[in-house]
Amino acid sequence: MADPRFFRRRGPFSLAALARIAGAELRDPAVAGRLIADVAAIAEAGPGDITFLERGSGGPLLVQSRAGACLAPSRSPIVPPAAMALLLVADPRLAFARIAAAFYPDPPPQPGRHSSAVVDATAVIAADAEIGPGAVVGAGAEIGTGAILGPCVVIGPGVRLGAGCRVGAHATLSHCLLGDRVVVLPGARIGQDGFGVVPAAPGHVRMPQLGRVLIGDGCEIGANAAIDRGALGDTVIEAGTFIDNLVQIGHNVQVGPGCIIAAQAGVAGSARLQRQVMLGGQAGVVGHIVIGAGARVAAQSGVSRSLPPGAVVSGSPAAPNREMLRRQATLKRLAARMGQVGRKGEER
Amino acid sequence: MADPRFFRRRGPFSLAALARIAGAELRDPAVAGRLIADVAAIAEAGPGDITFLERGSGGPLLVQSRAGACLAPSRSPIVPPAAMALLLVADPRLAFARIAAAFYPDPPPQPGRHSSAVVDATAVIAADAEIGPGAVVGAGAEIGTGAILGPCVVIGPGVRLGAGCRVGAHATLSHCLLGDRVVVLPGARIGQDGFGVVPAAPGHVRMPQLGRVLIGDGCEIGANAAIDRGALGDTVIEAGTFIDNLVQIGHNVQVGPGCIIAAQAGVAGSARLQRQVMLGGQAGVVGHIVIGAGARVAAQSGVSRSLPPGAVVSGSPAAPNREMLRRQATLKRLAARMGQVGRKGEER
Amino acid sequence: MADPRFFRRRGPFSLAALARIAGAELRDPAVAGRLIADVAAIAEAGPGDITFLERGSGGPLLVQSRAGACLAPSRSPIVPPAAMALLLVADPRLAFARIAAAFYPDPPPQPGRHSSAVVDATAVIAADAEIGPGAVVGAGAEIGTGAILGPCVVIGPGVRLGAGCRVGAHATLSHCLLGDRVVVLPGARIGQDGFGVVPAAPGHVRMPQLGRVLIGDGCEIGANAAIDRGALGDTVIEAGTFIDNLVQIGHNVQVGPGCIIAAQAGVAGSARLQRQVMLGGQAGVVGHIVIGAGARVAAQSGVSRSLPPGAVVSGSPAAPNREMLRRQATLKRLAARMGQVGRKGEER
Repeated sequence: MADPRFFRRRGPFSLAALARIAGAELRDPAVAGRLIADVAAIAEAGPGDITFLERGSGGPLLVQSRAGACLAPSRSPIVPPAAMALLLVADPRLAFARIAAAFYPDPPPQPGRHSSAVVDATAVIAADAEIGPGAVVGAGAEIGTGAILGPCVVIGPGVRLGAGCRVGAHATLSHCLLGDRVVVLPGARIGQDGFGVVPAAPGHVRMPQLGRVLIGDGCEIGANAAIDRGALGDTVIEAGTFIDNLVQIGHNVQVGPGCIIAAQAGVAGSARLQRQVMLGGQAGVVGHIVIGAGARVAAQSGVSRSLPPGAVVSGSPAAPNREMLRRQATLKRLAARMGQVGRKGEER
Repeated sequence: MADPRFFRRRGPFSLAALARIAGAELRDPAVAGRLIADVAAIAEAGPGDITFLERGSGGPLLVQSRAGACLAPSRSPIVPPAAMALLLVADPRLAFARIAAAFYPDPPPQPGRHSSAVVDATAVIAADAEIGPGAVVGAGAEIGTGAILGPCVVIGPGVRLGAGCRVGAHATLSHCLLGDRVVVLPGARIGQDGFGVVPAAPGHVRMPQLGRVLIGDGCEIGANAAIDRGALGDTVIEAGTFIDNLVQIGHNVQVGPGCIIAAQAGVAGSARLQRQVMLGGQAGVVGHIVIGAGARVAAQSGVSRSLPPGAVVSGSPAAPNREMLRRQATLKRLAARMGQVGRKGEER
Repeated sequence: MADPRFFRRRGPFSLAALARIAGAELRDPAVAGRLIADVAAIAEAGPGDITFLERGSGGPLLVQSRAGACLAPSRSPIVPPAAMALLLVADPRLAFARIAAAFYPDPPPQPGRHSSAVVDATAVIAADAEIGPGAVVGAGAEIGTGAILGPCVVIGPGVRLGAGCRVGAHATLSHCLLGDRVVVLPGARIGQDGFGVVPAAPGHVRMPQLGRVLIGDGCEIGANAAIDRGALGDTVIEAGTFIDNLVQIGHNVQVGPGCIIAAQAGVAGSARLQRQVMLGGQAGVVGHIVIGAGARVAAQSGVSRSLPPGAVVSGSPAAPNREMLRRQATLKRLAARMGQVGRKGEER
């Protein structure tokens, strides 16, 4: 059970209600009225809890579980413990996410501005938006309906946030336009100057950064991540893209919809990620290249050339994953041989 | 055209005036009086805009451009469209940066302290400095003429900022002395404790961090970057060095003048970068080594030994770039051979 | 000498007092009453200073030093300059840390709440805690005795800080419970949502993050580091672990006691580090693996499989360090041979 200091739980819900929320089929309709009080991991769940079985997870986890109900993959020949109700669904993890959100919905905005917030008179704030303590909202900024600005958030002049955006404490937004339901975690920096240094003697010169950052509906931007605004033209993050903590997005980068970028990855200026690209943690993409739709880049990879759609790459510089595994195996074998030769030589 | 919500444009400027600003030669003096209203990228520029042609870029971009004027490399045999004025200059990108800054100068400080700022009575603030909402300035701090502290900036006791410094929202400065015209982007952390952990049993012990951070004139420190103060002695960033977002500079590091350090790079304690070193994104430099003047370290490289001036290295551990390319080619070829052998073996 | 703008020095101390603090043996008891005024590095120290000689450092440093006193390894046959007192101790660096802390103790809290702080009426703040300007403390939060919250710190509802915690400016703490004497550097983010994205069509879905972050006594969390709270269950950092700047700790990670994690390293979700693991800078650990007690992971390594206790690994993907060195040497040799073959071919 989630710590009540931090989370407020709804419910209980009947199995019928949960099946509806999850789009799942309750295997035994006779238990439709049984009440479930909470969500839990499969190993910790008790009789009042609903849990889920990952696709591909074995039965033993399920057999040992004391959960009152479990979301499981459709058409799998699962025999649950007697006391466990099964809800069958194509994607149990996804279904569990929906059910967990029913038990623990995001807290709604508490409309109004904290007295310590500094809001410019020309800013347009929706009546039901929440402006936290110490927040600063600049001239002409627009804050959409149901939006929440956490404590000490700074919204620069002219910035626009759509409906239902949630901005965590200490985030800084300038020179940017956000769609609806964008989630910005604490300390994210959006819209600051790109790294526009022009090498010159006797001193480098800064190229003015005259673009913006555009972020589509439903994106998430991680804690302490940085998204620079464009130099000429915009940096664009399309709808439904998730960006993890400490990620760097350079100026004029374009990220297509539905991408997933793991923590500490970096995308250099003017690179383009088409739709549904996945970057692993600490991966890097050099500037001015295109990563094709659905490509997957392993953690710590360094992509230095454009990739076709669907590519699966690893290594630095990155190569197709199979090729990279072959190279690693080759080197391992050669090193082992060299080691033998060396040792034989020493024995003589 | 830059979004007027975020940028205020000056001008128009005559071609003669722009040539003067850029140090360029107007090829056709007859058009010296023609007015230019804005800057734009070469593909988007219209008749009222000035753009630039990168050194090495082909003519096709130019031929198709509708720009009213273009900065182009001197002595290149360029034939522009009839309506386009040419301004010839050694470094068109640099010239464009100067012209863009004329159209879009940094906004000047709005002198005064916001009523919500908390400024210690013993701090010395220039009369024309701007102290933003929610900013905090500690005892004995000095803020130079024309400096701007953004919203929620925290300046620790005793910190000194020179003339014309610009500190972005949420930046934290402590135990540091900054020269003139230093730009600090949002969320940068300067002067906090270095990582002085002394491994010990039963518990590690913290080494007091008793140094400072010294930053020279005209440096730029990126968003969410971290520069730790020295343990004994100082961490030093010399004049004109540009540091990108999310960079880590460890305690007692010395960075020479004119260095360029790309995003997410890290320099470990007591390493020394001589003048005009370039570190690529996500590159790492171990502690206590020296990187010679003008050395270039590719993205994601890991430098574990000192480098001579002018070295060009890549890889982790880093080696001269040519050598690294040879190793990669060698491994690729060997892996291909092994693959063939393997496949032949399977065929039998 | 530390800059008096930033540091207040105590002392002087007699050599006898310093020997007691350091647990060291004063080689010449006749000088027990001599006063020492400050600490300094061995090359800069003067007659009034105490310094230390690293284990394994050569004598020349010592011979040239003008220090009035020096902490040196017991049983080493050191002949110091005539004017230098020797204090013999097993670990001179550790002893020096203790002495430096005696000269420059952490400033004590200045009890009370700054008038600009926003503290919820239901928060429980120790009478002697210091709440800095612009700090925000949420409902039901508990701040222990002697704790210091720097300027603009944000403490979320229900968060608990033990005795003597020190939280740097702009840090954000939510959904977390901290032990005693935890040091949080500026801009650290603790307790925000983990990266719980469930890939789905037409749009990815966010998995509610219902856990907490638990941090043990005496831990240190670096500037701009990010520690996400658990999804179900907690993210745990055990006592005495030191985490450097810009480190990423994913949801449900468990870090044992006494670990040392260098800057920009990242640990992915549900990975487990046993006690006293050391991660080098920019190292990465994938999710759901176990790093055995005392294992050491070199900088920039990428650990993709569980490691046994005491493992020493490097490379990406990581392998035992010896093996990795052998592979590098092998590749270097093969590339050199190929180069020769190529050159011979060209000569013909």
